[in-house]
Amino acid sequence: MPAVDINCDMAESYGAWKLGADEELLDVVTSANIACGYHAGDPVTIERTVRLALEKGVAIGAHPSYPDLQGFGRRSMRLPAGELRAAVLYQVSAVEGIVRAHGGTLSHVKPHGALYNDAATDAALAAAVAEAVRSLNSGLLLYALPDSKMARAAREAGIEVIEEAFADRRYDPGGTLQSRSVPGSLITEPKVAATQALGIALHGRLSAHDGTPVSVRAQTLCVHGDNPAAVSIARTVRERLESAGIEVRRRS
Amino acid sequence: MPAVDINCDMAESYGAWKLGADEELLDVVTSANIACGYHAGDPVTIERTVRLALEKGVAIGAHPSYPDLQGFGRRSMRLPAGELRAAVLYQVSAVEGIVRAHGGTLSHVKPHGALYNDAATDAALAAAVAEAVRSLNSGLLLYALPDSKMARAAREAGIEVIEEAFADRRYDPGGTLQSRSVPGSLITEPKVAATQALGIALHGRLSAHDGTPVSVRAQTLCVHGDNPAAVSIARTVRERLESAGIEVRRRS
Amino acid sequence: MPAVDINCDMAESYGAWKLGADEELLDVVTSANIACGYHAGDPVTIERTVRLALEKGVAIGAHPSYPDLQGFGRRSMRLPAGELRAAVLYQVSAVEGIVRAHGGTLSHVKPHGALYNDAATDAALAAAVAEAVRSLNSGLLLYALPDSKMARAAREAGIEVIEEAFADRRYDPGGTLQSRSVPGSLITEPKVAATQALGIALHGRLSAHDGTPVSVRAQTLCVHGDNPAAVSIARTVRERLESAGIEVRRRS
Amino acid sequence: MPAVDINCDMAESYGAWKLGADEELLDVVTSANIACGYHAGDPVTIERTVRLALEKGVAIGAHPSYPDLQGFGRRSMRLPAGELRAAVLYQVSAVEGIVRAHGGTLSHVKPHGALYNDAATDAALAAAVAEAVRSLNSGLLLYALPDSKMARAAREAGIEVIEEAFADRRYDPGGTLQSRSVPGSLITEPKVAATQALGIALHGRLSAHDGTPVSVRAQTLCVHGDNPAAVSIARTVRERLESAGIEVRRRS
Repeated sequence: MPAVDINCDMAESYGAWKLGADEELLDVVTSANIACGYHAGDPVTIERTVRLALEKGVAIGAHPSYPDLQGFGRRSMRLPAGELRAAVLYQVSAVEGIVRAHGGTLSHVKPHGALYNDAATDAALAAAVAEAVRSLNSGLLLYALPDSKMARAAREAGIEVIEEAFADRRYDPGGTLQSRSVPGSLITEPKVAATQALGIALHGRLSAHDGTPVSVRAQTLCVHGDNPAAVSIARTVRERLESAGIEVRRRS
Repeated sequence: MPAVDINCDMAESYGAWKLGADEELLDVVTSANIACGYHAGDPVTIERTVRLALEKGVAIGAHPSYPDLQGFGRRSMRLPAGELRAAVLYQVSAVEGIVRAHGGTLSHVKPHGALYNDAATDAALAAAVAEAVRSLNSGLLLYALPDSKMARAAREAGIEVIEEAFADRRYDPGGTLQSRSVPGSLITEPKVAATQALGIALHGRLSAHDGTPVSVRAQTLCVHGDNPAAVSIARTVRERLESAGIEVRRRS
Repeated sequence: MPAVDINCDMAESYGAWKLGADEELLDVVTSANIACGYHAGDPVTIERTVRLALEKGVAIGAHPSYPDLQGFGRRSMRLPAGELRAAVLYQVSAVEGIVRAHGGTLSHVKPHGALYNDAATDAALAAAVAEAVRSLNSGLLLYALPDSKMARAAREAGIEVIEEAFADRRYDPGGTLQSRSVPGSLITEPKVAATQALGIALHGRLSAHDGTPVSVRAQTLCVHGDNPAAVSIARTVRERLESAGIEVRRRS
Repeated sequence: MPAVDINCDMAESYGAWKLGADEELLDVVTSANIACGYHAGDPVTIERTVRLALEKGVAIGAHPSYPDLQGFGRRSMRLPAGELRAAVLYQVSAVEGIVRAHGGTLSHVKPHGALYNDAATDAALAAAVAEAVRSLNSGLLLYALPDSKMARAAREAGIEVIEEAFADRRYDPGGTLQSRSVPGSLITEPKVAATQALGIALHGRLSAHDGTPVSVRAQTLCVHGDNPAAVSIARTVRERLESAGIEVRRRS
């Protein structure tokens, strides 16, 4: 039976500011990427989300970022590779310890926002991220775009890569994500996201925003937690996948 | 042969700002308390100091603080116990992971600055710190003032306490530290610090600022890294202790 | 005709995190207290809120805080008076400049959260806040609890005080605010808040949570922007006041 | 008589971390660029430095940065123009208010570090900085590289530009600064810096690191406050200029 993981970014509240429907999403998704305090995620929020994920059997990953609370980690920063490596190691360690303190095991790492994008195309940054993960625990999985510099660097460091596609983002005909600045680039209609998810999981294919068929390889599907329709999208995606005989399960 | 540990706060630089002679001090002291990013200690600084400490065989501890870079963790903050517990767990985890990534083992935890002082007298804060440490690893040692609420809470949580006294701080006749705001409260003359250290290590006794003899129990002696004479004090203290037949060694 | 001001804390979003219905509230209230970046309020949010307030003719105040994003300024911090004075001056200056850049004039200052509470009872902190405001512009109004240390310090510094009461907070029989930790201390029923507001504005009197009549002097009424019913409360309060012949208008 | 200004970045300490010999430098330079809190400069440090500058008659400028304490503002960040404009306005306003509170007048603005470099070559960023300054006070001077995008944008916004050259940095033959990553790019020998300063001030000419003569236009000369030899360089530069009959004076 074919299988796929559904992952979602979580613990992205900060103190008094609440973001995302973590508790409801944890009933639907199979992997949670936990903010590490650099773009979001105060310690109380991290710990509460970790506890909930453990109760619900959801795989827990660390979601490190550039140090940029004000920009939510969505602004590129030119960090020297050594600074980036240390910053990623710090963040993953912080979340890993909290998971362990609650009797769990950290499963994976997925870079956040601008770091995810930059490390997909910059080999030096990708190597810095991979080296940080490897130095802590080479058994951690790394979630990355297929064929990206990040995926290559992780494999070269001996880290298993889980290839990721997006259920709720439009793609360009060339197979990259349509820029968030384009209206409509974020899919908010659950049925549309579910159709895209099914195409990826079943046939490794989706339709770009102009209808061009695009090939996409993925063992995990991302649903964005800050999508206003996140809960509904995640549920619809999961139901549609399961109705089609695809098992939705965590990768570790 | 009697033995004592010498500990020093370290990794208290932050980005472009340098503080402390960590490299030289690591040749003298036997325990390093590593800043965790909340009052000082960027990831690069933490990692470099951890690496040096491992090379030199110095025991490594985490030195968590209130979240207050601007105040260097020296200003009391009224954190609810749950927020404090999570904040300490986050910080200790971050440093613990970095130590592990470099093949080492975290030995101890010592709260920093205002948190050290507050947890010495407030049972709820002390319990929050102890619970954070215990949840991560109950084998960690906790450095604390003898007879403090912190020491009691740690023992109740099943954590071994290493009692601490200060080589370079003046004491009040009642056995508490003289306030930093009093001129002369920080001892900067190496010989004076060494004499105080020897009295503590050999006889469990020192002279308060007015000459009153004070009983002090200690398995570890603190030398302040931000003392301008830190390196010279640490060397003189160590030499004097060793000349008197006291073994200077780490506790774990 | 009697008159009263209605004020509300605003610009309390931060980057990706949204808080409060600033735009709708600015159609109802007559004074806006603008977060200054220390507990909330990134520069884009501050500027947008300032622009809206100017368009709608709402008086603009600065809402300085302890430096505590993670705690939203609700945790007491023991800042030395000199540090607090400088921190308040920095924050008020930042907002004042932004107001001026948009052709407006800063009207008032209202300390936020834990600083508001601490400066109400601690004369040294109150003097630090007053001195910061006076040094920038002694024509600024200061919003404060009647009979508080803050009100006294402001008057001694030659600053006009606008006495404040709360439409949506329960009071203790002694005339202080019921602690936020008590369930029900925040009034969420618009009619109840409106009744309390009317009593204050018309008769200088309200009923404490146990029914005890309490005398309260106020030239401004606060509605909390983070109250989930904030817009509805503000509208109902304003309508009830105006129906009773009380003019709702800004103080400057 | 020919005249030139000497400027230096200041107030770059932060809390417990001290950087720069501000007090001594203020006896030598004629313009001080004050850190605004985003890369350095806590409120106490800002205020103290402003007070000293006013006592010594030194012109005061704001020195805004990307929001990056950990990187000291030396790491490029891709801020959307609107976010940058608001961030610069916030920072300049904060310092301007503190200067005014002490009876002074803000004279100029000089972007810091990576922002200085980025705005020199990116027209959109340059326009954002210029617009922030203009909106607050179009009478402020802007310190910028000659022929840079920053200089052009400022002039287009109606802001007077003070062209800047560097006494203690090596230049490439093409007239740009040699990268800081090249050993020797920072001149630490006071006489060498003084010779370069004199060539610029007297003849608009200096020698690149390979001896190539380079034409440089400047009304202000920068001496770096974080240069370990800063005080000595500043004094030697000033003496040499004055010995050659060049008046060293502020531009406003």
